Formats: sequence, C-alpha cells, structure tokens
Amino acid sequence: MPNAVADACYALALANRIVAYEGVLDGFGHVSVRHPENSSHYLLSRSRSPELVEPADILEFTLDSEKVTPGDVLPYGECVIHGEIYKARPDVKAICHHHSVAILPFCVTGKTLLPMNGLGSVMGATVPFWDSRDEFGDTPMVVTTAAQGASLARALGPHAMVLMRRHGATVVGASLQEVVFRSIYSHRNAELQLRAAAFGEVSPLSEGEAAMACAYSLRERPMGRAWEYWVTRLTKAGELPPRMSRSPQEP
Amino acid sequence: MPNAVADACYALALANRIVAYEGVLDGFGHVSVRHPENSSHYLLSRSRSPELVEPADILEFTLDSEKVTPGDVLPYGECVIHGEIYKARPDVKAICHHHSVAILPFCVTGKTLLPMNGLGSVMGATVPFWDSRDEFGDTPMVVTTAAQGASLARALGPHAMVLMRRHGATVVGASLQEVVFRSIYSHRNAELQLRAAAFGEVSPLSEGEAAMACAYSLRERPMGRAWEYWVTRLTKAGELPPRMSRSPQEP
Amino acid sequence: MPNAVADACYALALANRIVAYEGVLDGFGHVSVRHPENSSHYLLSRSRSPELVEPADILEFTLDSEKVTPGDVLPYGECVIHGEIYKARPDVKAICHHHSVAILPFCVTGKTLLPMNGLGSVMGATVPFWDSRDEFGDTPMVVTTAAQGASLARALGPHAMVLMRRHGATVVGASLQEVVFRSIYSHRNAELQLRAAAFGEVSPLSEGEAAMACAYSLRERPMGRAWEYWVTRLTKAGELPPRMSRSPQEP
Amino acid sequence: MPNAVADACYALALANRIVAYEGVLDGFGHVSVRHPENSSHYLLSRSRSPELVEPADILEFTLDSEKVTPGDVLPYGECVIHGEIYKARPDVKAICHHHSVAILPFCVTGKTLLPMNGLGSVMGATVPFWDSRDEFGDTPMVVTTAAQGASLARALGPHAMVLMRRHGATVVGASLQEVVFRSIYSHRNAELQLRAAAFGEVSPLSEGEAAMACAYSLRERPMGRAWEYWVTRLTKAGELPPRMSRSPQEP
Repeated sequence: MPNAVADACYALALANRIVAYEGVLDGFGHVSVRHPENSSHYLLSRSRSPELVEPADILEFTLDSEKVTPGDVLPYGECVIHGEIYKARPDVKAICHHHSVAILPFCVTGKTLLPMNGLGSVMGATVPFWDSRDEFGDTPMVVTTAAQGASLARALGPHAMVLMRRHGATVVGASLQEVVFRSIYSHRNAELQLRAAAFGEVSPLSEGEAAMACAYSLRERPMGRAWEYWVTRLTKAGELPPRMSRSPQEP
Repeated sequence: MPNAVADACYALALANRIVAYEGVLDGFGHVSVRHPENSSHYLLSRSRSPELVEPADILEFTLDSEKVTPGDVLPYGECVIHGEIYKARPDVKAICHHHSVAILPFCVTGKTLLPMNGLGSVMGATVPFWDSRDEFGDTPMVVTTAAQGASLARALGPHAMVLMRRHGATVVGASLQEVVFRSIYSHRNAELQLRAAAFGEVSPLSEGEAAMACAYSLRERPMGRAWEYWVTRLTKAGELPPRMSRSPQEP
Repeated sequence: MPNAVADACYALALANRIVAYEGVLDGFGHVSVRHPENSSHYLLSRSRSPELVEPADILEFTLDSEKVTPGDVLPYGECVIHGEIYKARPDVKAICHHHSVAILPFCVTGKTLLPMNGLGSVMGATVPFWDSRDEFGDTPMVVTTAAQGASLARALGPHAMVLMRRHGATVVGASLQEVVFRSIYSHRNAELQLRAAAFGEVSPLSEGEAAMACAYSLRERPMGRAWEYWVTRLTKAGELPPRMSRSPQEP
Repeated sequence: MPNAVADACYALALANRIVAYEGVLDGFGHVSVRHPENSSHYLLSRSRSPELVEPADILEFTLDSEKVTPGDVLPYGECVIHGEIYKARPDVKAICHHHSVAILPFCVTGKTLLPMNGLGSVMGATVPFWDSRDEFGDTPMVVTTAAQGASLARALGPHAMVLMRRHGATVVGASLQEVVFRSIYSHRNAELQLRAAAFGEVSPLSEGEAAMACAYSLRERPMGRAWEYWVTRLTKAGELPPRMSRSPQEP
C-alpha cells in the first residue's frame, strides 16, 4: 500500500475519533475522505462506531459505493451518502455525516440554522434542508440507495452542509481538516442558536460578516491551531488510533 | 450453575453498567432478564446501584417475585415490576426500570413522548402513561405490590415502554441487547423532544416512517454496532463487571 | 481524640467530597455535623473548598460559632449559618450550605421549589424562602453575623431546607447521611422542575404522595444504597479523603 | 531571565489552563499579564490553544503589540486586544479574552448581562456592549488592528468586562488571580441568568448588594480559596504546565 494511502487511512481514523471525542458523532455517523491517488474512489471505515475506527478498518469504494477492498467485512448501510456527493462535487475531498444532539432540534423542527458568530459561519451562509419524503415518501429514515444519495447531493448543491429532516446533517469540505473543523463549529453554532432562543427570536450575522468570517476562519492558522488542540486532547485521553499493522487490501 | 445461567448473570451485570454509564440509570433503577432455561423465573440483582452490579449479585425470582436464591441478601423493593410484566408478556425477555433525567420531565408534566427520529422510534409508536393514583390513590411513588405491578403491566399492554407518572419509565424487549438499545435511544429521543421544544410545538415522525425506522433499527447490525461501542466505552473506563467467582446459589 | 470524634471528622470530610463530586457543591459551600459527644458543639472544616476537605481540616465550634480548636487556621466566614441552626433546632445533626447551579435559578427568581417526584420529596413539602433584605437591607450576600444566622434559622423553622434569595440553599438533617441524601436529591428535583418548565406550568406531587414518598425514601435501605453508590464513585475517582494523621486539637 | 519574569510566565500558563479547564476557554481565547518589571510591556502566549500553553510559549510584547521576543513563532492574531487595553488602563494587570458558551447567547442577542448573585457581581455593576460595526462595518469578527483594539478599550471604559457583539467577552483585572476569578464567575453568572430565564424575566441584584458583594468577593480569602481549588483540580487532572526549561528570550 502506498504511503499516501496509509497516511490517509490514519488521518481518517484520527478524524473519526476527533469528531466523536468532541461530541458531534456518537455510536453512529461516519467520516470519509476522497482517495488521495484516485479521485474516483473514496475511503470509509467498515461499519463501526467512529470512536473505535482504526486505520485497518478503512475500506476503499468506487463513487458508485461499490467496495473495492476485498474481504467480507460489512460497510456502513449509508455509504451512498459519501459516493453520491463525491460524484456530484469534484471539489469535495472529505465528508462527515452525523446526528449530533445540537443539530437534531433543527432537523426535527425545520428551524433554519443561521450563522451566529465568526466560527459558526464556517458552515456557510446557507444550510439547505433535505426532506426525504419529497421524493421517497415514508422511509426507514436512512439513506441507503444511490437515488437517495443523489437526491441528498442535489439538495446540498454548492453548499458546505445540508440538514436532513429528522435525521441529521452531512458536512463537506476541501480537506479532512476542514470537514472536521466545520463539523465541530457548525455543531457549536447550532447549540448557541438553540440556547440564545431562550432570549427570543435570534437573527444571523450580517451577510458581509458571515462571508468575511468564514474566509478568515478557514485559513491554515486557525484550523491548524484547532487541529493541534483536538489531537492533544485525544492524545491525553489515550484515544489516538493505533498505527496500521496490516494493509486494508490484505485483511 | 449451568453455563447459560452464568453467562446470563454476566450479561445482566454488563447491561446494568452500560445503561448506567450512558446516563440513563443512576443510583436507582434496575435491569432484569428472563431466566435463560426456565421461562417462569427471572434474574435481577440484589438491591444495589446498577453501576455497581456484579454477576455474584444476581438473584433468581419466580414470576410472583419470590426470591429463589437462598441467603438473606435484600432484593429491590420494586422487583414486582419485573415479575408482573414477565407474567403478562411471554414475549418479553428483558426489562429496564429507570428514572432518567430526560424522561422525568414527561412523567412530571404528562407531555406525550413522541418519536422524533429514526433511532428514537425504537420506543414504539405509542408510549402509554400509567398513573398510580387511578387505582391506588396516594402512594410513596414506588411499585412494591403485585397488584401495582400488574396494573403497570396492563398499562404497558402490547407496547415497548410505559411512562409512570412522576416516577420514571419501564422499558421491555425481546432480548437484553434490545432493552439496552431501547432504553438508551428512548432516553435520547426524550432529550431531543425537550430541546426541540425551545423552537415551539414539536410533531412526531409520520406513522409510516416510525414503523419502518423502528424495524430497521432493531436489526442485528445497528444493535450490534451500538453494543460494541458501549462495551468498548465501558472497557476503556475500567467499568466492566468482574467475572463471577461464586455461584449465586452458593453465597 | 476519642474514636467517635475521629470517625465523625472522617465522615464529614467524606460527606463534603460526596456532595461536591455529585455536583451540588463547587469551590464554595460547606457541610457540618453536630459534635457526636457534645451536642452544644459542632464540627466544620477550616475555610477550604469542600472537594479538598481532609479530616485534619475539621475544626470544633461552640453553638455561638466560636472556634474551640486551637491554632490560627481560618474558619469559613459563614460558620454562623451552622451554629445558629444547631442552636434553634436540637433535632438537626448535620447541615449543608450550597449554591448549586440547579437551585440558584429558584433563588434568583423567587420561583417556588416544589416536590416533583418521590426522591425529590425528601426536601419536605414546603421549602421556605429567606430574603436577607427583610431584616438587613443591602448586604454583601453572605451570612456572617449571628443575627443573620438566627434570622435564617427562623426562616427555616421546622422545615428541612431553606432557599436564600440570590444566594443558595441550606439543608438540614437528622444525620450526615440524610443531609447528603437530601442535598443531592433536592438539587436534582430543582433541575427537574426547571427542565419540566419547558413544557409549561409545573404542578407538585399531591400532598399525600409527597409525605409518603418522603418517609419511604428516608429509610435506611434507599439511603444506604445511595451512600454505597456515592462512596464507590468517589473511590473509583481516587477522591476519598486521606485518613487523619494528626488530631485537630494538635495542629 | 529574571525570576520574576519566569514566575510570571509560569503563572500565566497556569492561568490559561485553569480558565480552560473550568470551561470558559476552549480551542480559542487567551489570557495575558502585564510584564512584572516593565509596565509598558505585556506577556502573552504564542498562538496556541490555552489548555496547551507552557511557560516556554510566552512571548513579550510592547503596548503597541510589537513582539519583543526574538524568533519567528506566531503570536495570536488578536493580541491588540491586550496591548490597547493595557495602554488605556494603567490599573489593569491581566486580561482574558474568551468566547464561552455561557457568554455567547448574550453576545448574539444583545441581552444585558446582569449580576445575579454575590459571586456574579465580581463582573461589575455594568458590562458594556461593543459592536464592531459601529466603527468598522463588516469585519471577519476578529479584533486584529490597533484601531479596533483601541475602540474596544474605549467601550470597556472603566469597567471590568466588556461583551463583544457576536464574538465573546474581554475581562480585565488588577491581578492574574482576579482576572481568572472574574472570568470564571462572570461565565457562571451568565449561565445562571440564561437558566433563570426559563421562569420569566430576570432582575439583577440591587445596586447596593452588587457593590458590597463585589468588594467582599474580591478579597484575598475567597479568591485564594478558589485558586487553591482550581489548582488542585488541575493537578489531579495531570494538567499543570511543565516548568520552563528554556527562556522565552532564548528559543
């Protein structure tokens, strides 16, 4: 296995654990990354809670979400979320799908998620809302077919994040670091908007502020500082993923 | 003691600790399981906080909640909750009674608990509400007589969970794993419903969605994935129960 | 130092740490106990955060809150709360004064604290409200004179707990174990009442239920079960107080 | 490096970690202290999450926020907050800038932060509100120019704390210990005000009470007691900063 792929597998396990440790992912949800050497493939763990993901759990998929990695380990039932978005959005290099306790009140009520402060604005000025009933009627509230994944990707459009009615959120980014940063700070923005509602109706940042703050926050310095912080917290908690002892192609 | 019973005792201690570690049980509340080799008996810890339960604490009871295990250790005052439900519901293999901080606001106000999302729908489309005053007037707010346990079992009816006015909840399942899964995700559903109320009146999943999502979530894959997650968390916290060094029949 | 006193000092350090570990006390607040061999004296730590109290920190006071223990260590500024209540209430054997995050919203707004459920009813059917302005006008919001302590004791009257306007709560009991139990469960009752308010106006348990549940909960079995739970949690966290290596009379 | 400076660097690292450990600072925000031997300089960490700051990270700045310490390590983008306030307020010896989860709902809604109880009154009777749009229009919601820092210092005026619209808070004090105390207890006051709002409109302490309680709480005894508590908590968590092994002037 080339070093770039091994590095990507390690970084992806780390990203899963960071987003879980910071309270956005729990037993369910997942983070993926586009394959570093083949942009028509992506990497995603086998079906496992994100807090437990190890580099050796990472599988390789085509953009049609067909598993390339041999062996009979089970992928997530919702891997099409990742495949269909990578297909529709060549600029997207990493994706996080989650059901955080802060985001869900918005998914359940349809309340619009608005940028509250500078860091919150990294979720983008507009967060569209996808309702699976529009095209699919009653479902088990999971995204398991290519058609559903493609519908979600259309709802996402050019944005950085999409809310899914009564289900959760899907967050995309130009890098793994960016998607981690956006997942965590959009989660906190949601928590802030909910708490601020105790004082009445809440308005957003001005459009100009949101755009400028988003650009400012997504620079290397703040993202690097936050990354160091999260990795250190994970390290102190003894939660770093183990280094891979075998290749995912040689299970 | 047969292996199946020893295994059930260990699994029951584990289940008590998982539900406590995930914040549903605290100093009070308890989980039981139907006896694996004698469906007219059930297993339940001696009176002890669920976070501390060990396999050696597990006692055996008849469905009339008479303690079969010799020795003078004290059972829970509310063991009739378990006995009367096992009596009324042959399909039930495990029961959890708790007073979680998320459920209690519903018990106190009579607010209807509604399925908010896919995982929340595992509590069933309808969660009935039992008011002990209807048959028993003023009580110390505990269920300690067979008549009270039978009344609660009637209120539960064919459902998966019953709220108890100003007291807590009782959750049943077809297996220990299912009752753990349902206890945790109904607790989170309640928390979500309470939080979403900050944005106004909250409606449930559609009936079709709730039914499909419930069936989907109770399959082996999602329940197994969550179980691995919870056991790993307990393991990392050093909270696994000790293996039994003596039989409950030989105290 | 007699064994009964040494035991009382250890139990008092333990009680301080339990109530802190369970989130009721923080950097401020204190627990005292009546002297086990001299009912006109009481025991209370030197001025120190309750989470840190050790048996060697315990000082002896008269009911006029004069320090009997020699040495120049500093007592709490508010020790008169304890002395004046022990003076007014011979039945009281232990006292906890705190400013918990759950109680303070009631102290700030004057909202009546009501028994929500069985365990919450251990705070008693009525929790009176003391406003220091009534007799003392503007103060620094601390109880530091005998007159203020006596005023608070009058407001407490025959009850088990008194709220102090914009300050906190003082909880009394017939034993250290009872005061710990009441402090923790009244704190949780307050949290429950606040959370339930998200669904509208909240009513109390019926008077009969509250009285029966209070009597039921204060029996040895539930209190002992909770005590084992709290001591075990403290032990696992490595937070047990050290055994005293010197007498408080020989500093 | 003189001992007083080394001591100040250690104390500053400690202060950063305390305020982070107590939940006021997270990945962002910072604490500074005026130089102990040169009142026209101040000390502030290089750009790093406060929970991670070590004595060796501390840099020296002029009041124009020019870095005096040689080497190419990166300062915080917002160091002008510190420089401009030290310039405008000779009485200020330490500053904390943060975006705590309790303060932000006030920053987002413009709700007035009011003293709720004795300890909360250490934030001062009046907490002014600074809106960067008034002088600077749309910005990236950070304070990075001397003009912005000076504007913030004017808004702070003679007060102890200023809220920054949709951004956070800046807290000042006569010592590092005081700024830590004020940062933590104003944060808790904000949390209390938000929670109390569940019961309706919330009023402040009387002016006289707030002034007397502020003076009482800022004495050495309560501040020292809290400081011992926070340092002990940090010690038990294994989070004390390492002793400096090299001088900041010799990187």
